[in-house]
Amino acid sequence: MNYSIIRIVLGHVIRFEGIFMLIPALIALFYGERAGIYFVLCAAGCLLAGTFMTRKKAENRSFFAKEGFVTVSASWVILSVIGALPFIFSGVMSNPVDALFEIVSGFTTTGASILADVESLPKCVLFWRSFSHWIGGMGVLVFILAILPLSGSSEVYLMSAESPGPKFGKLVPKLQKSAMVLYKIYFGMTVIEVILLLAGGMTVFDAVCTSFGTAGTGGFGLYNDSMGGFSSYIQSVVTIFMLLFGVNFNFYFFLLIKEFRSAFAMEEVRCYFAIFAAATIFIAANLTITEGNPLYQLHHSAFQVASVMTTTGFSTIDFNLWPNFSRIILVVLMFVGACAGSTGGGMKVSRFIIYFKTLKKELSVMIHPRSVKVIKSDGKPIDHDTIRSTNIFLIAYGFIFTFSLLLISLDNFDITTSFTAVAATFNNIGPGLEIVGPTGNFSVFSNFSKLVLVFDMLAGRLEIFPMLILFAPGTWKNSLHWERRKNS
Amino acid sequence: MNYSIIRIVLGHVIRFEGIFMLIPALIALFYGERAGIYFVLCAAGCLLAGTFMTRKKAENRSFFAKEGFVTVSASWVILSVIGALPFIFSGVMSNPVDALFEIVSGFTTTGASILADVESLPKCVLFWRSFSHWIGGMGVLVFILAILPLSGSSEVYLMSAESPGPKFGKLVPKLQKSAMVLYKIYFGMTVIEVILLLAGGMTVFDAVCTSFGTAGTGGFGLYNDSMGGFSSYIQSVVTIFMLLFGVNFNFYFFLLIKEFRSAFAMEEVRCYFAIFAAATIFIAANLTITEGNPLYQLHHSAFQVASVMTTTGFSTIDFNLWPNFSRIILVVLMFVGACAGSTGGGMKVSRFIIYFKTLKKELSVMIHPRSVKVIKSDGKPIDHDTIRSTNIFLIAYGFIFTFSLLLISLDNFDITTSFTAVAATFNNIGPGLEIVGPTGNFSVFSNFSKLVLVFDMLAGRLEIFPMLILFAPGTWKNSLHWERRKNS
Repeated sequence: MNYSIIRIVLGHVIRFEGIFMLIPALIALFYGERAGIYFVLCAAGCLLAGTFMTRKKAENRSFFAKEGFVTVSASWVILSVIGALPFIFSGVMSNPVDALFEIVSGFTTTGASILADVESLPKCVLFWRSFSHWIGGMGVLVFILAILPLSGSSEVYLMSAESPGPKFGKLVPKLQKSAMVLYKIYFGMTVIEVILLLAGGMTVFDAVCTSFGTAGTGGFGLYNDSMGGFSSYIQSVVTIFMLLFGVNFNFYFFLLIKEFRSAFAMEEVRCYFAIFAAATIFIAANLTITEGNPLYQLHHSAFQVASVMTTTGFSTIDFNLWPNFSRIILVVLMFVGACAGSTGGGMKVSRFIIYFKTLKKELSVMIHPRSVKVIKSDGKPIDHDTIRSTNIFLIAYGFIFTFSLLLISLDNFDITTSFTAVAATFNNIGPGLEIVGPTGNFSVFSNFSKLVLVFDMLAGRLEIFPMLILFAPGTWKNSLHWERRKNS
Repeated sequence: MNYSIIRIVLGHVIRFEGIFMLIPALIALFYGERAGIYFVLCAAGCLLAGTFMTRKKAENRSFFAKEGFVTVSASWVILSVIGALPFIFSGVMSNPVDALFEIVSGFTTTGASILADVESLPKCVLFWRSFSHWIGGMGVLVFILAILPLSGSSEVYLMSAESPGPKFGKLVPKLQKSAMVLYKIYFGMTVIEVILLLAGGMTVFDAVCTSFGTAGTGGFGLYNDSMGGFSSYIQSVVTIFMLLFGVNFNFYFFLLIKEFRSAFAMEEVRCYFAIFAAATIFIAANLTITEGNPLYQLHHSAFQVASVMTTTGFSTIDFNLWPNFSRIILVVLMFVGACAGSTGGGMKVSRFIIYFKTLKKELSVMIHPRSVKVIKSDGKPIDHDTIRSTNIFLIAYGFIFTFSLLLISLDNFDITTSFTAVAATFNNIGPGLEIVGPTGNFSVFSNFSKLVLVFDMLAGRLEIFPMLILFAPGTWKNSLHWERRKNS
């Protein structure tokens, strides 16, 4: 294990977090809130520690997949631990586990909260919560790499460990250049959303924070009823932008370079919108049959489907009270998630496309054993390794989900609560059903369960393997062995 | 598609069902029940139709995988449709869908019932229900093949389509010989259980029917409280035999040929008992903490864990009232299921061993990219095809489960009821939780949902693919195309 490079990367992460924390400090200054002091103190600590850690050069440049995984997961853990400090120091949360849960929920763009009354929070704390979504949506390490070149091989491993979804090939040969293009899109779309929300009469603070939550597909609300109190216009803008941020960013890249045909031919994006439309119509129909008022139902079901499918987690109404058919559609969507290469979570639409095609191919081979079929995506054959790793993702997903469910069920909440609590955190959505529904929160769980869910949020955001490798005994054992051999 | 061989095999299936139906007719004669007439009539019809269908020889002997899958699934559907007739004619059930549900539940060794009061049923009907478990546990087609040689290639495809679990290699080169050995073990163990139950003071009728339900890992009870009214001795005998019938029958084969070391080295069997022991202890501990009385809890948790894990579905107490940690352990066990090559259902322990090892290997490759690892089972490497088909099974399982859940949720029962209803039928267990818990039944569902669950029970018993292929458009479309080409 190359500890010196890991130290340097972590140092950069901490330093950047320090810079990020200066923004809520400015917000506090503007609104005259005392809590700003704690952001300044934390920022100062970060800048000091980060500078100290990055001062000494790396002893050797060797950096492989293992180092990449460990660095990414360790970065996210450290980012979260430090990010939780202002919550504790400002007295907003007295339990350190609650503070950790809240900020992990922020950075992983989950949006699950342990707070019952967010309206009582200081503006700078509200801003820090929403800002953490925006930072998390960008991917901290990819961001650092984009503006700060490290060493050749490290970039590849760090980026591949942090970016969500199966990889179908690179768009731009230079990773850094590619990341910069994506950030411009991300930044530009956030600005457009802010403008459209301001046009609907939102305050600047609300518009910026809501846009952060949408862009990162996070979902922390600024009000106790989430988005319920806003006008239909604002709810519709948010619906559209949640959907847009759940689209594979390659789509926008194609649009930018004017390859419109390639953009609109993207199978994952078409499938994503088809699922959205189907789910919205089914839920609206289900609600109309029981309550009437079809247009009203269509509006809210579109919002809720977009919110859950993109794993944002905003709500306009209490979908926990919906009939079970609609509720189960939402639960299924929690697992489907958004597109790969978006800021959304879940298992990703592209994985389901691969699963579906694998199954179809297998059935066809069973019926015609001599036929030769290749699984294709967007016209190109998907290589064997992608299929294999997609299958293994499913297995890892199943094991972690089951194990988490068993652990949190020790708290003895009803099965729907426990099941959707894991589903909502592991898929980075936010609210689940019953006790953890849109009007509830996660404060009822024991500290132990909260830590399990913290792990799930991080594992979900980093697509499982970096977190598994951080905790795998083999990561640390054989490294020492190797080091010892090298020294002898 | 070779329709003539399919016709002949179905003819044999129907004829055998006719013979099987004579036994409940004898029971009716013994107890002087009028309902026996309907069994005689159905048996006569079956024998007539079966003889007629098998009279004309097959036009050609070509028989491939596709024919094998279609024949197996069609056999099970026909077997069930005919088996439901006595329920309807005798007036026990007026709704044909209920009758179909009940007998599919019998043949697939599920044990889920739509009846609230089984104690009011005539003995011959009770016998037919339990007997269907025993028949289903044997595998109808394998049984026919064992005593009635058809053609060379057809046997391989029929047996591989009907037997549960991933295949690790053949024990006995001749399939027929191998099947006969397994049937001797099945029959012998059933007889031993009957004797032990009689020793505990059970009536002959109860002992035989209970043994049928245990041997097939079915779970239809003879009393409204399932096994709750019997002595601890009888409950313990049933616990042990449920466990024994959930063991991979290769284990007994090894014992028979005195290869004790091979028997006890079987990884799947060791794992199966380890899971049983761990689950029993965890549940007993959970129940002891809330209610005290550790030995009592251990007795019932052992029974319930054995019942759910082997997918039998008998119950001694209402586990729906257990704390959620224990309930969720049971739900997880529903999916794990019993050993491959047993009469039990579920996804099978051996598949989970493969999933676990695949994941472990992948993590190890991520940590040490240059290491070469092979996944082994019982010391022998598992071939790539087995791993691939195990992965595809998981994908197919996930899709069918989700789709079934969505369909039955139209009935608007709570999520736990809907979820466990699918889990309990697809894994061939019987009772689920809440409304379909051990004291409830499946009668509340709409006919549409019952048909969905009927499909799930059959798909679960036949390990998904035969049923998918029966309904795949490609099975029928290209066959016509092929036939046309052949004729032109």
